Amino acid sequence: MSGKSDPGRFFEDFRLGETIRHATPRSLGPGERALYIALTGSRFALQSSHEFARGLGLPGAPLDDLLVFHIVFGRSVPDISLNAVANLGYAEVRFSTPVYDGDSLTAQSTVIGLKENSSRETGTVYVRTTGVNQRGETVLELVRWVMLRKRDKGAAAPPPAVPKLAEHVLLDSSLLPGLDLSRYDPDLGGGGHGWDDYEPGERIDHIDGMTIEESCHMTATRLYQNTARVHFNQHAEKEGRFGRRIVYGGHVMSVARALSFNGLANAFRIAAINGGRHVNPCFAGDTVYAWTEVKAKLEPPGQRRDLGALRLRTIATKNRPCADFPAEGPEILLDLDYTVILPRRVQRHRNI
Amino acid sequence: MSGKSDPGRFFEDFRLGETIRHATPRSLGPGERALYIALTGSRFALQSSHEFARGLGLPGAPLDDLLVFHIVFGRSVPDISLNAVANLGYAEVRFSTPVYDGDSLTAQSTVIGLKENSSRETGTVYVRTTGVNQRGETVLELVRWVMLRKRDKGAAAPPPAVPKLAEHVLLDSSLLPGLDLSRYDPDLGGGGHGWDDYEPGERIDHIDGMTIEESCHMTATRLYQNTARVHFNQHAEKEGRFGRRIVYGGHVMSVARALSFNGLANAFRIAAINGGRHVNPCFAGDTVYAWTEVKAKLEPPGQRRDLGALRLRTIATKNRPCADFPAEGPEILLDLDYTVILPRRVQRHRNI
Amino acid sequence: MSGKSDPGRFFEDFRLGETIRHATPRSLGPGERALYIALTGSRFALQSSHEFARGLGLPGAPLDDLLVFHIVFGRSVPDISLNAVANLGYAEVRFSTPVYDGDSLTAQSTVIGLKENSSRETGTVYVRTTGVNQRGETVLELVRWVMLRKRDKGAAAPPPAVPKLAEHVLLDSSLLPGLDLSRYDPDLGGGGHGWDDYEPGERIDHIDGMTIEESCHMTATRLYQNTARVHFNQHAEKEGRFGRRIVYGGHVMSVARALSFNGLANAFRIAAINGGRHVNPCFAGDTVYAWTEVKAKLEPPGQRRDLGALRLRTIATKNRPCADFPAEGPEILLDLDYTVILPRRVQRHRNI
Repeated sequence: MSGKSDPGRFFEDFRLGETIRHATPRSLGPGERALYIALTGSRFALQSSHEFARGLGLPGAPLDDLLVFHIVFGRSVPDISLNAVANLGYAEVRFSTPVYDGDSLTAQSTVIGLKENSSRETGTVYVRTTGVNQRGETVLELVRWVMLRKRDKGAAAPPPAVPKLAEHVLLDSSLLPGLDLSRYDPDLGGGGHGWDDYEPGERIDHIDGMTIEESCHMTATRLYQNTARVHFNQHAEKEGRFGRRIVYGGHVMSVARALSFNGLANAFRIAAINGGRHVNPCFAGDTVYAWTEVKAKLEPPGQRRDLGALRLRTIATKNRPCADFPAEGPEILLDLDYTVILPRRVQRHRNI
Repeated sequence: MSGKSDPGRFFEDFRLGETIRHATPRSLGPGERALYIALTGSRFALQSSHEFARGLGLPGAPLDDLLVFHIVFGRSVPDISLNAVANLGYAEVRFSTPVYDGDSLTAQSTVIGLKENSSRETGTVYVRTTGVNQRGETVLELVRWVMLRKRDKGAAAPPPAVPKLAEHVLLDSSLLPGLDLSRYDPDLGGGGHGWDDYEPGERIDHIDGMTIEESCHMTATRLYQNTARVHFNQHAEKEGRFGRRIVYGGHVMSVARALSFNGLANAFRIAAINGGRHVNPCFAGDTVYAWTEVKAKLEPPGQRRDLGALRLRTIATKNRPCADFPAEGPEILLDLDYTVILPRRVQRHRNI
Repeated sequence: MSGKSDPGRFFEDFRLGETIRHATPRSLGPGERALYIALTGSRFALQSSHEFARGLGLPGAPLDDLLVFHIVFGRSVPDISLNAVANLGYAEVRFSTPVYDGDSLTAQSTVIGLKENSSRETGTVYVRTTGVNQRGETVLELVRWVMLRKRDKGAAAPPPAVPKLAEHVLLDSSLLPGLDLSRYDPDLGGGGHGWDDYEPGERIDHIDGMTIEESCHMTATRLYQNTARVHFNQHAEKEGRFGRRIVYGGHVMSVARALSFNGLANAFRIAAINGGRHVNPCFAGDTVYAWTEVKAKLEPPGQRRDLGALRLRTIATKNRPCADFPAEGPEILLDLDYTVILPRRVQRHRNI
């Protein structure tokens, strides 16, 4: 080998405090918007219609928050997690300035924690990844930690450093610049329920299921230019732990969010992901279901009286309807703690 | 369940004359255009090239008529047909103002008929669904009727009301604003045949076949934000009547229309669907073929002498080539009666 | 059959020197760009980010060179190769004016060679296909030759004419109008290696593998409006030579090019394809790997000192990692001789 191709970093290749600029800046636009809908089934009005968004004072429809998440995350994969044994978790995921058609994003990651595992064969790397647009405005920050192999078991390990991570994310005030909800139309939004209508402890079964195909999850993951090998290479994975390709956990997040439209239709922006775990792997052929518990009702940033935030726990399962709200067992795919924004009060007039 | 998610309406939830505004307004643009081509194989010049369309006096390439149909139809599914036992038919489908990149559509449906079936377990609901753009111009009207379950067999039924539906659709004069065919180039259009060349009774075998994959039909149907469960949930459908997911009938329509390019290349707009039936279900793995009979030659709207309309019957089959024009049997998928517009006379100069 | 549909041309339907204008002009834009990334996994910075491209003096991100190749090639299929027994090869593929969002392409082919085979059942047709944009600027020229069946074995054959084809392509000076590499950022480009760093004879294993699904290759091939039947019709192909659909060879080219990012990240434009062969067929389920040999270092057009060209040989395999650089055997899919452009010198500053 000539050394020109990159096998990916191992645990001992990271040092605390370093910042890595990721390759492949990316413009997003109508193509990504349509593909995101086509691959996930998302139906949120704000991201589906420029006219609806302009009616609320925005310059156009923002791109889906999770699309932005996957794009920023995807930039970091070749540098951070190509040799990951496991993606252990997310925290402090804060959405900021909305992304519009034509915006170009770049991403970089700072190493905020390193801890060798007791086996000395692997270690955990914590990074904070930031996505910015072409004006240098932050669109997203996220923290994640992954378990990486060491290239050489005998290599010296840095002193352990584990970052303190917030239990929940403070919402960013640049989430909703210019948003005017006075003309919000819940008939078009798709739901009769505003912030006032939800109560802590309430549980919502999102009812529908979506079966995952190899082609769908691979196409979505390539759209994000996420190169993690376990999603794409059946020739290698047939010898791997599961004998087959694993669905990118972010695709499960997107499908669960799309399913959650049925019950949370007016939750038009994700403000934060407080924490998340991919509990079990998802494979092609699995059918994803989801349910949500309202964990808390929060004030939105900027003391606005027209909208509110909900802290939610959404659980996605495989091949297991959620009418009885399952939270444990091998059928659980995802356990996501996140915060959404929605109008405080809505009144639907379906019939005219 | 908290009651926040919507299980869909049942027969007794509809009342005659009510109008339901559907959720999720939708902007269409270059993403939907490219995906429609990629998922159906459509090759019509007018919808493929802005330059070609501008040469005919239009502001750009209109989006495919059936894409618009699926988008408008898709809006109505969560409110009308989520609990449908069967989609029984279409009529009075009239295409109007063309849809261009950046247009935003909304849709609403009016209940125009209700009839309980003799079993008292189901009933038929007739709706007229209208799609409009951001200027309030109608882009499409369609009538469809579906058989729905009753929630409660004992529920009282309304007096039966069955709408009179036209045998065929009068063409809309806003179909072709500004269209100037003097520069129509049939070499680019792809066919050597104009309206003058077709005769009533003539049959055309479209020759090619297209095999349907789960991922392709699901991606198309999600693109339209059509949420009908039978297309997406293998976990539930494996216990269903067919043991597997059913391909959205509209996807079969689009594939048949795309195949019909070979023989009807200059039929650049669909003006109307007079009637249509999905005769048998299509499943992943089936190969779709199609043939067409010219039913009648019609004058176009506006008494134009440069173009004409053809009333066509296109039949799509599964796993059955159409050289002998099959019209009956278990291999018939679709029987569609529709009207297209094409130049009256064309002269091809392939070789230069 | 009415004769309206086109069964495709046979060997005796071509005459030397004729030029055929192909149907279906095509606009390209953000939809095709996103789909190309989603279907191939391509990660080259110049084609991914308008901001990056503008930083180099271009009006926006050009569309991927192979996307343009497939679109131009696709136009020619219905007229040239619908009845092809085999696609025998490519040569003299020259990329010229870049294609940007909103450009509309048309294509035409001139017959430059005809030679009946000794069996008298088939013959080889050589065509030069040219793609132009809406301003009449050439974006691509290519030569290919295909083996076609004769309709009638007894038909008279023209005198044999085999064109002389160049061993390699002279680069076009309109490849890079306005390109200013002074602000080229290799951190964003994704690679630490410029033209200076590559040596003739050097071999690069691109490491990763990509498994091909039926839905992915069919969607890609439909995106290009390439109608070759062997890619789409399982009902017919199950009786064919291989018993299944064959993946469009161009899709393998695109996947191999996307994989080559790992080792050739700064090779931002393909300037030419000197020759190429699809050595063995690829089927759904196969995993594509690739490696590259640097054949020669070339001066770029226009005597620029800031960039250089590399003549490369990329070999793609199926189900066969390339750490040992395999060049023969049934696992070889593609053997491609092409020329890329890259900055002469780069210096990466990953850590900031």
